[in-house]
Amino acid sequence: MKTRAAVAWKAGEPLTIETVDLQGPKFGEVLVEIKATGICHTDYYTLSGADPEGLFPAILGHEGAGIVVDVGPGVTSLKKGDHVIPLYTPECRQCKFCLSRKTNLCQLIRGTQGKGLMPDATSRFSIDGKPILHYMGTSTFANHTVVPEIALAKIREDAPFDKVCYIGCGVTTGIGAVLFTAKVEAGANVVVFGLGGIGLNVIQGARMVGADKIIGIDLNPEREAMARQFGMTHFLNPKDHENIVDAIVQLTDGGADYSFECIGNTKVMRQALECTHKGWGRSIIIGVAEAGAEISTRPFQLVTGRKWEGSAFGGARGRTDVPRIVDWYMEGKIDIDSLITHKLKLEDINEGFALMKRGESIRSVVEF
Amino acid sequence: MKTRAAVAWKAGEPLTIETVDLQGPKFGEVLVEIKATGICHTDYYTLSGADPEGLFPAILGHEGAGIVVDVGPGVTSLKKGDHVIPLYTPECRQCKFCLSRKTNLCQLIRGTQGKGLMPDATSRFSIDGKPILHYMGTSTFANHTVVPEIALAKIREDAPFDKVCYIGCGVTTGIGAVLFTAKVEAGANVVVFGLGGIGLNVIQGARMVGADKIIGIDLNPEREAMARQFGMTHFLNPKDHENIVDAIVQLTDGGADYSFECIGNTKVMRQALECTHKGWGRSIIIGVAEAGAEISTRPFQLVTGRKWEGSAFGGARGRTDVPRIVDWYMEGKIDIDSLITHKLKLEDINEGFALMKRGESIRSVVEF
Repeated sequence: MKTRAAVAWKAGEPLTIETVDLQGPKFGEVLVEIKATGICHTDYYTLSGADPEGLFPAILGHEGAGIVVDVGPGVTSLKKGDHVIPLYTPECRQCKFCLSRKTNLCQLIRGTQGKGLMPDATSRFSIDGKPILHYMGTSTFANHTVVPEIALAKIREDAPFDKVCYIGCGVTTGIGAVLFTAKVEAGANVVVFGLGGIGLNVIQGARMVGADKIIGIDLNPEREAMARQFGMTHFLNPKDHENIVDAIVQLTDGGADYSFECIGNTKVMRQALECTHKGWGRSIIIGVAEAGAEISTRPFQLVTGRKWEGSAFGGARGRTDVPRIVDWYMEGKIDIDSLITHKLKLEDINEGFALMKRGESIRSVVEF
Repeated sequence: MKTRAAVAWKAGEPLTIETVDLQGPKFGEVLVEIKATGICHTDYYTLSGADPEGLFPAILGHEGAGIVVDVGPGVTSLKKGDHVIPLYTPECRQCKFCLSRKTNLCQLIRGTQGKGLMPDATSRFSIDGKPILHYMGTSTFANHTVVPEIALAKIREDAPFDKVCYIGCGVTTGIGAVLFTAKVEAGANVVVFGLGGIGLNVIQGARMVGADKIIGIDLNPEREAMARQFGMTHFLNPKDHENIVDAIVQLTDGGADYSFECIGNTKVMRQALECTHKGWGRSIIIGVAEAGAEISTRPFQLVTGRKWEGSAFGGARGRTDVPRIVDWYMEGKIDIDSLITHKLKLEDINEGFALMKRGESIRSVVEF
């Protein structure tokens, strides 16, 4: 079949809208009509050429929602008409990682996914017979895409695509880091470094589980208002404090119980660790640092009881947890609407990247 | 009263045996006759002058066992004749740290302990009216010492002092890191870096909880035999492998579930983290690094699910857990006898340090 997609031909160049050929689903695969997709910083990171593992030409996009149009042989958990969110972190429930019960990082199809290919090591997308690569196993910048069954979360049918698409990455990454990775308990003090989309979702995750102090840190004072709307109780701007770590330790009577780094800055990651409480503080890295950058600290920080950890896709098992997060949104437990600041047509997708670069959007969503 | 003690007058100089004046126990304090004490690397670290927090003159020693001779007013949990192990990590059961249920690092008397003083900010030891400082709140290189009630574990009376004194530090630090900090589960793969006294106790802790592969790493091939006796199943010498991290990852089908750094070398700490399994590997730092040294890694190691942690006194709550470890020794669940390679008189205590420096002892014990 033919479909429309934004194609990334080369690092650093704008996407172009193309009519592409899409092969139907093979064994264990599902054809999905994408209804809406968010534009995430990770798409920009790859498009910019900064990602050493970026491959071109490819159809980017990993934060979508849509409807099952067709299923390949062997697909048992989905049928035509089901509403779904594609998962760049699949959940096969069979591999060593899924069965460990200790991680959400299903590795069953990681090798081919990293190469921009489906599990049979081929692409379903092409133009004039030349293959176009998949991206993160999802390629949601196409109106139709083929995704492995294990990489689709089935969601309720009354959930609006233009909102819940954001659960495909940003919402889950932030809320999940609080609920699934850190398992923050009621009454805990939480510090969030970086009040962009991820940071705001960390904040509302902390509010959801009943955290006590929820302290936001950002250099940009304009971020304060919305962060308070999402549950932030205290705002600290590093520009106003000689030593931001000391300021946090004072505000929390000894240090935060949990801290979350939502920027990708290795110096901030160190501050995030060292502002946590002696004896039990846990610091969770969410932000993606530039290639080659390293974190460091004195080992004494760990020997005296702090733990340094990370979170990918919020520790969420996609097929199990994403539908629950959709429920929480529908029940009003979490806010997504306020975070979606811009709606675009596919033709204007490059404007979505521009808004992000200029810091004007929290999340832009493309509707098909 | 008068008692005999080895006094550290100055960094870098041998201890001298002195008759010292010892004041009786004040409120909440206990007078203990020390029957035996281990000589630990931390005593040497302080004596050498390398510890920036070291204070002199002092009576060192923190790995003792003895009998209660007298109790001060307000002491309710101990009485004359009780057998005890002094605790450099006390357990008051009242402070924020004890009540957190998340750490063993009781902080109630930390301020004065760090200054070589009792909780009322004075010393009980003196010579010719000049105060001699306490050390780590224990000062077990004295035949009699005064210790706060909250820093004494009451143990069974049939336990031999010359063996269970080692539970006051080394045994608990190693076994506890496995049982209390990491909570290693049966079937896990464990890697231990450094096969000295702490490493051997980590190994027997791992054996005690039913670990699967217990892999020891040391540059010294002579360490292999005793480590196997304590439960090590595989030995790797970094000299025999181009990349020790890769060798461990291969041997464990993807990485260790838990690793323990028992050396204090920041480069080894990085290897210990990076040899653990993607998704769930946990690396526990036990070794004490030189002042100012830093650990570093790429944050990707944490974002993909590894955790970097530390352990002090094995995560053990002294008054609660030390008596249990004494029981385990008496029941034959753990071996201490093989680790005590030398017995000395107090007069020969400097020879104990010399044996340690030459690498000839695992543990030397002084008997009074």
